[in-house]
Amino acid sequence: MLTIVCSGLSGKNVYYSMQINKKQEILIKFGSKVREQREFLNLSQEELAERAKLHRTYIGMIERAEKNITLLNIEKISKALSIKISKLFED
Amino acid sequence: MLTIVCSGLSGKNVYYSMQINKKQEILIKFGSKVREQREFLNLSQEELAERAKLHRTYIGMIERAEKNITLLNIEKISKALSIKISKLFED
Repeated sequence: MLTIVCSGLSGKNVYYSMQINKKQEILIKFGSKVREQREFLNLSQEELAERAKLHRTYIGMIERAEKNITLLNIEKISKALSIKISKLFED
Repeated sequence: MLTIVCSGLSGKNVYYSMQINKKQEILIKFGSKVREQREFLNLSQEELAERAKLHRTYIGMIERAEKNITLLNIEKISKALSIKISKLFED
């Protein structure tokens, strides 16, 4: 969890920093699902990148939750992983 | 469907323009689901925007498939609509 502490915090600022924590969790969950499915298919990051027409380093960043992925790229990855988008978000 | 025709097309270019068509469909499907769930909850775009802490015009653009939404904003909207992300991608 990331906690941002600022001097002169208002109620609104505190709420905002809590949002940042929550946001990161969804990226972590999504990245883990991508890695799990990629490994299930015995694909390397390079192979997945090639299938999805994305860059290999981008796939690594998604799996490590370092990028806020867009819907068009979520779709590219889901197709390359032969899995429905809804499945990538199931618990 | 959008078809881009360029002079001096290579095979790769043709493939790329097909990808653009496919990409738009997912934005349309997602935008429709957001509108459907928003109307089911009897919320205006303004009310949804306020709940999600996003701008009203942004909600409109998402519903009209004019924006390539990011995962963090997908999560904000799903929470504001009290629906799981996976449900927003089910057929």
